[in-house]
Amino acid sequence: MSECLFCKIVAGEIPSATVAESATALAIRDIDPQAPVHVLVIPKVHVTSADHLTAAHGPLLGDLIELAQRVAEHEGVRESGYRLVMNNGPDAQMSVAHLHLHVLGGRPMDWPPG
Amino acid sequence: MSECLFCKIVAGEIPSATVAESATALAIRDIDPQAPVHVLVIPKVHVTSADHLTAAHGPLLGDLIELAQRVAEHEGVRESGYRLVMNNGPDAQMSVAHLHLHVLGGRPMDWPPG
Repeated sequence: MSECLFCKIVAGEIPSATVAESATALAIRDIDPQAPVHVLVIPKVHVTSADHLTAAHGPLLGDLIELAQRVAEHEGVRESGYRLVMNNGPDAQMSVAHLHLHVLGGRPMDWPPG
Repeated sequence: MSECLFCKIVAGEIPSATVAESATALAIRDIDPQAPVHVLVIPKVHVTSADHLTAAHGPLLGDLIELAQRVAEHEGVRESGYRLVMNNGPDAQMSVAHLHLHVLGGRPMDWPPG
């Protein structure tokens, strides 16, 4: 059995606040939101990080982006704008070693992005 | 002729500091870097933003991620970590209306991501 937190969430073994879902990905609320809208788009298959993606993951990436767009629409920030963030490795503060796309919006986002 | 800044850069009409290139994308240094490593991965084809991507862009997304990984390797931050950011619309401070993936690293990145 996987010890990965997000694999357990995808499997329904750990509860989460699901916002939307597709055949290949799940969108859940971040438990420590950094903006009024802060949702994580997570592939159902285990991929450790964006640094572990290959060209073969193209279709999966298309799915993740489409789900992020649906989340933005659902949360009412598609017009006002939203930031997409993927962290890789220690300097980026990657917290869970399962690829996740942060979708942040609902306030003006600052620059630099952290 | 396109009036898009990044289309002009891709066409070689405006100079840029190119870091790497693939068949479908160009990686250039950000002119206002926010970290020791701050590179933009830009598709050669015009796509307005990540919000304008569709599932058909999956292969292109795979290419962009692979080029971002090559940039991270080239810049020596693949082990230390790097953050990938895409801005959509006004709240995210999107500056150029041509899709670009920010690759940032070389220092610990803060949280929230802006």
